[in-house]
Amino acid sequence: MNGADRLCDTLLANGVDVCFANPGTSEMHFVAALDERPQMRCVLGLFEGVVTGAADGYARMTDRPAATLLHLGPGLANGLANLHNARRARTPMVNVVGDHATYFLHHDAPLTSDIDSLARPMSDWLGRAGAAGDVQRLTEEAYAASMRLPGVSTLVLSADAAWGELAPAAAPAPVVLPPLRPVEPHRVREAAARLRSEARVALLLTGSALRAGPLATAGRIGDAMGARLLMQTSNGRVERGAGRVEIDPVPYAVDAAVAALADIDAVIVVGAKVPVAFFAYPGKPGVLLPPGCEIIELARHGADLDGALDALAEELGVSTRRPAGVARTQGADTAMPRGRLTADAVTWMTARALPDAAIVADETISAGARFFEQSRTSAPHDYLRITGGAIGIGIPLATGAAIACPDRKVISLQADGSGMYTVQGLWTQARERLDVVTIVFANRTYGILHGEMTNVGVEQFGRNATRMLNIDDPALDWVSLANGMGVEAARADTTERFADLLSTAVGGRGPFLIEARI
Amino acid sequence: MNGADRLCDTLLANGVDVCFANPGTSEMHFVAALDERPQMRCVLGLFEGVVTGAADGYARMTDRPAATLLHLGPGLANGLANLHNARRARTPMVNVVGDHATYFLHHDAPLTSDIDSLARPMSDWLGRAGAAGDVQRLTEEAYAASMRLPGVSTLVLSADAAWGELAPAAAPAPVVLPPLRPVEPHRVREAAARLRSEARVALLLTGSALRAGPLATAGRIGDAMGARLLMQTSNGRVERGAGRVEIDPVPYAVDAAVAALADIDAVIVVGAKVPVAFFAYPGKPGVLLPPGCEIIELARHGADLDGALDALAEELGVSTRRPAGVARTQGADTAMPRGRLTADAVTWMTARALPDAAIVADETISAGARFFEQSRTSAPHDYLRITGGAIGIGIPLATGAAIACPDRKVISLQADGSGMYTVQGLWTQARERLDVVTIVFANRTYGILHGEMTNVGVEQFGRNATRMLNIDDPALDWVSLANGMGVEAARADTTERFADLLSTAVGGRGPFLIEARI
Repeated sequence: MNGADRLCDTLLANGVDVCFANPGTSEMHFVAALDERPQMRCVLGLFEGVVTGAADGYARMTDRPAATLLHLGPGLANGLANLHNARRARTPMVNVVGDHATYFLHHDAPLTSDIDSLARPMSDWLGRAGAAGDVQRLTEEAYAASMRLPGVSTLVLSADAAWGELAPAAAPAPVVLPPLRPVEPHRVREAAARLRSEARVALLLTGSALRAGPLATAGRIGDAMGARLLMQTSNGRVERGAGRVEIDPVPYAVDAAVAALADIDAVIVVGAKVPVAFFAYPGKPGVLLPPGCEIIELARHGADLDGALDALAEELGVSTRRPAGVARTQGADTAMPRGRLTADAVTWMTARALPDAAIVADETISAGARFFEQSRTSAPHDYLRITGGAIGIGIPLATGAAIACPDRKVISLQADGSGMYTVQGLWTQARERLDVVTIVFANRTYGILHGEMTNVGVEQFGRNATRMLNIDDPALDWVSLANGMGVEAARADTTERFADLLSTAVGGRGPFLIEARI
Repeated sequence: MNGADRLCDTLLANGVDVCFANPGTSEMHFVAALDERPQMRCVLGLFEGVVTGAADGYARMTDRPAATLLHLGPGLANGLANLHNARRARTPMVNVVGDHATYFLHHDAPLTSDIDSLARPMSDWLGRAGAAGDVQRLTEEAYAASMRLPGVSTLVLSADAAWGELAPAAAPAPVVLPPLRPVEPHRVREAAARLRSEARVALLLTGSALRAGPLATAGRIGDAMGARLLMQTSNGRVERGAGRVEIDPVPYAVDAAVAALADIDAVIVVGAKVPVAFFAYPGKPGVLLPPGCEIIELARHGADLDGALDALAEELGVSTRRPAGVARTQGADTAMPRGRLTADAVTWMTARALPDAAIVADETISAGARFFEQSRTSAPHDYLRITGGAIGIGIPLATGAAIACPDRKVISLQADGSGMYTVQGLWTQARERLDVVTIVFANRTYGILHGEMTNVGVEQFGRNATRMLNIDDPALDWVSLANGMGVEAARADTTERFADLLSTAVGGRGPFLIEARI
């Protein structure tokens, strides 16, 4: 038994039984240890952005971490953008990054780099195992931190810690996690007092408060006290659709967000951050709440958000009857779009076609902006979004969610520009036979940046701007790309064709990709 | 005029007139400034690994930096793996990474991260412009450092430094670079003394010492003094083939390297690092030179390597006649391979088909191992290799080299596993109509890792190892992938078919991709 064996056993003892991986030479002992443990499911990504994004999608749906296996500094670096998203989603994850043997580092061999410096910005917990004897303790710490925060843990595994011999030992006992931090009674009383006052109050939620149960509690409080429900602009996972309590995000655009929040006197924060603009713009505000708006922190990230809402409902004495939630109408109120395909038609038809318990991974950036509104009354579904603004999460997120929930349909709403970042994830969908329908919004442009250029005062684009913001020359052929990675695919440029393809794809088993030429 | 305008003008004043880019919202003022300067060529990469790898290939062929434009921490992170390679190749490069406005950072908006921590491990120079007034000075420093070291400079450009107003000003004067550090006379005398002794001496070269001129000088010294010529295992660029002086790299495999260096008493280092193993292995040495081998540092990286070799030749009084170099035979000594395509047949035919002044970008990892030997007597060519072991450099490197040298044929030798890392670079080749022939060694496996698993004692792979080291299920269809990005492509599984395709591709103008099924 060596350090790598102990690492695997410790992960498995704690229920971490999926490892998204792209290994290299320095991780061969870890690969050998994984190979002896078929109860660990190893899923290969052809690029590390797929690995970390899939681990994020997996954990958003299971509420427990997957492991990742990354090769030295460059392998970690390739996965950092999606670790950034995972950190912003507060996703539990345990990254294992191989490093050179401790005694070899000083040689500064070609693949040597400062892994800790690379890992720190995107890790909530960071550790380094330099000897086999350290591995179990650090793996347990990494796991416990990922669950407790929750957040991203990164364990750097030196090659000699992996291959170092240990006395044979039985599987470790599972880590006993501390209970979630309970809400502080004075915060409940303060929030209740504000809700009972004349002030116009909003509840601002994120994290586990966006599951159906706590949302229902928040809905009861809102109904009884006349408070608004809001959620962060980007959230890891929201349970929504028919039967669930409706909740709107703080808008992305600064002016829209300021307008949406203008009439709030106090905000009760449940796990969320105080809303700020995504970017600074000359002359525009950074904080989106109106001046003088009071902020009451009911519960912080990592606390028992569900319990906090229960306690608040009890303090207020509001009805315990679960609210009815939204009715299922699936767009019956508007007419079926016809003819030439548009982004709004794609989202309208998709919202209507969502099967029960679908998982939607949304990286449409600008093109699919109307989906959220159009799917208010769709079948109940989980909605996963890009959280940290690092594009290239959509395909991996869908991949990981499909591995987590093999019996649920995953609908991957994917902009073309961001889709190209981690397009390799389609291959993993084919390899693992995942039930994912990918819908590519092929508008052949970084659409959001056109608006941003206008924001800085540029109306007429010259050659350089055109060539940096448009991706139309040559146009990407997404059917070829998908087929090249073993994923069946077809193209639609009319609503009728799209409706046919969507119906076939949703009715069958994936993976399947639809290129929606809009 | 704002800080972004001044940045562009400073770059252009110093001959930095190509910018590889993938912009985002925080760089819109930079994009606007680039748009007003059509003399700057902006080249879009659909992923930042393409951006930084192309900037590396460009600078390896021009000896001056390209700029890159990267979007915040995640955009930089996506480019880090190829920055790692560039740093190991000692490539001049000026990265411009946008960041939030200085006054906005404390909000910790979703895209905020510690960019400095991410940039430092892969940057030889790192600076941060927080005000428009700092931009010119820092850009000049970044440029000068990239040329002087040479190496990778990273300038973090705060959004308010980009949009901050400046008084209109004429274009800055070019930076006056200091002359290269001359060789120290005592080092020349010491090296000459060792060459005149009975000791068995090797000259170990890298960097600019591997251009035809200095190599010829090294060849004269070697011939006259009976010294061996060696180069680092990985080098940014080597001028080789017919008419050039032949030089062998230190082998990659530890045992082979130790054997190759066993009979050396002293090594004279010209810009190179003392050779160490790529990885540590239990029970194997890290330093590859034999015990007691003397190391004489004639000139360090960043010094005048060409001048150092000249001085050494003069001190030794060796002939000034340029050596003849190798004869051009192009594999006429061995028979044309026939039938089923193999990796060795691909490299043999490619070596034979190299046109004069071709540029070869080699990321074949294990599959194309014989190319280097087979192309000893090929037409004169430049040979660029992966330098830092971070896979995913090949397609970008070829892309950048083709932009640097539009009149030369670029042959991109590409393993399939590493090729998938930055496959998006094919699109840039199509968009820019680059004359690149990509040959994919489609063996459907991470071939090098099979050997490494054997090294750690695993002979029989189980399911997990098989699924992490093989990429055969499903097989990638490289013709579809290339077509999907607008690159013409065809597949060969016999030598005859490959020979036909290669002849057509080399005779025509690219881009063209050949999937060599081996």
